[in-house]
Amino acid sequence: MNTPDKYSEKHRVTYYEADFTRRMTLAMMLDIVILASEDQSEKLRVGSDTVKKLNMGWVVIQYSIDIQKMPRVNEMITLVTESKYYNKFFAYREFWIKDDSGNTYVHMTSRWVVMDYKTRKMTKIPNEIVEPYRAEKVVNIPKLPRPVKIDESSEQVTSNQYRVRYLDIDSNQHVNNAHYLDWMVDVLSPEFLNTHTAKHIDLRYENEVKYGYDVNSKVSFSKNGNDLISKHEIYSNGKRSASANITW
Amino acid sequence: MNTPDKYSEKHRVTYYEADFTRRMTLAMMLDIVILASEDQSEKLRVGSDTVKKLNMGWVVIQYSIDIQKMPRVNEMITLVTESKYYNKFFAYREFWIKDDSGNTYVHMTSRWVVMDYKTRKMTKIPNEIVEPYRAEKVVNIPKLPRPVKIDESSEQVTSNQYRVRYLDIDSNQHVNNAHYLDWMVDVLSPEFLNTHTAKHIDLRYENEVKYGYDVNSKVSFSKNGNDLISKHEIYSNGKRSASANITW
Repeated sequence: MNTPDKYSEKHRVTYYEADFTRRMTLAMMLDIVILASEDQSEKLRVGSDTVKKLNMGWVVIQYSIDIQKMPRVNEMITLVTESKYYNKFFAYREFWIKDDSGNTYVHMTSRWVVMDYKTRKMTKIPNEIVEPYRAEKVVNIPKLPRPVKIDESSEQVTSNQYRVRYLDIDSNQHVNNAHYLDWMVDVLSPEFLNTHTAKHIDLRYENEVKYGYDVNSKVSFSKNGNDLISKHEIYSNGKRSASANITW
Repeated sequence: MNTPDKYSEKHRVTYYEADFTRRMTLAMMLDIVILASEDQSEKLRVGSDTVKKLNMGWVVIQYSIDIQKMPRVNEMITLVTESKYYNKFFAYREFWIKDDSGNTYVHMTSRWVVMDYKTRKMTKIPNEIVEPYRAEKVVNIPKLPRPVKIDESSEQVTSNQYRVRYLDIDSNQHVNNAHYLDWMVDVLSPEFLNTHTAKHIDLRYENEVKYGYDVNSKVSFSKNGNDLISKHEIYSNGKRSASANITW
C-alpha cells in the first residue's frame, strides 16, 4: 500500500480574509486549502501548468466540511492536505486547517475530476498527473453526502440576484469555485451571520458559471433535530450550478 | 529632525489575490499595503484596538499611486511603509511594493484623518497615537492631486449598479476602502482589462458607504497627451462616495 504524500504550509489570517465578525470567510477557507493543494502539486511537479499542457484541468465537484472553529484575524494556521484515493475518473482529497498547537479547526473531504478543456467535459485521469501524489488506487472512491434540495412547495425561499463580476473569474475564464459560497452566504442576513457559525457544509458543483452570467442564489431553512440547516441553490443561465447544505 | 519608523514585511501573491490575467488586483494592492501599516501600528503599540479604545479610527482619504508593474501570482514581494508627516488633523503615509531584488513595483502616497466614531466626523489627531511613528510634525502636509470629475455633458458615461454585500463590510461596519476600486474596475470590460494596465491612480474618498446601500459606479474616458485616462465616480445613498482617475 502507498503512503500518500502529505503536504502542509503555514498561513496567516489577514483582516481582508475575514468578515465583519473577524472570522475567516467560508469562501476564503476554500481559497486557502486550494492554495495548499496547488503548492503540493507544484512540489510534485504536476502543477496546473503541467496539467494545462495536456489541455486539461482538475475540477472539484464536491466538498464535505466539518468546522470546529473558524480561524480569526491574525491567527497563524497550518493547512494540511493529502490526495487519498483515486480511480479512473475520480480523485479524493482531504484537507485540514489546524491551529498553532495542532488542534483541528476544519476537516474537509473532496471529490475531484479532470476536465478536458476542449470538450469542457470530464475525462479519464492521466496516470502521469495522479501517480506522484501516491494516493491509493481503488475501484470506488468514497461518496460524499449530496446536499438535500430546496422544496419550493413547502419551504419559504429567500433569494438574491448577482452578476458574475470581473473579479469572480480566474485565469481559466470560469468562476473561482470559492465564490459560490460568497453568493450562498450573502443571501443570509448580517443579524443571522453575527449570531450563527457554520458547523458543517456539504457542497456540490453541477454546472460552470461564466463571466457576465446572472446568478440567482436561493436559500431555505429546515431543522434536523436540534440542528438548523440552510439549504442553498445557485442557478445561472437556466441551470442549477451548485447546491449546498450548511448546518449552523 | 525625526527619522520616521520604516516598516517592511514579505508577502506572497496568491492566485486568489489576482485577476484572470494572473496579476494582483488593484483592490488587493490596497488591502496588502494597509496590512503592512496595521502591522507597523501593532509593532509600535498603537494598533487599531488601541485607537478604538479612544472611540476613534484612522481613515484614509486620498491615495496617489504610481505603478511600474503589478505583481504576479506566486511572486514574493516586500511591502514597505512609513508615516512621513503629520499636523493637527492630517497624516501623510508612503508605501512601496518591491520585488525580490528591491526594485520598486508600486509607490503610493496617502493622506489620512482620524474619525471620531461617535460623531462619524474627523477629529484632532491625539498625540499618543501619532508620535510613535516618529513622522515629522509640519504645518501643511503635502497635497495629493484631486481626481478630475466626469463631465456628463460632453463625455460618454458607462455605469453599473452594485449592492453593498456582507463581504464588503469590515468590523467597523463600513465598506473596506479597497472595495471601491473593485467597483471602479468592474465597470471596465474584460477586453479592456486584458489589454491595458494601470500606470497611475489618484483616488479620493468622500462619503462612507454602508451595508445594504446601492452603489452606482460610473466611468468616462479622456485623453491627456498620449495617456488614456479613465475617470471614475462612485455614488451611493445620493452622495458621491469616491472618485478616481486611472492612467492606463
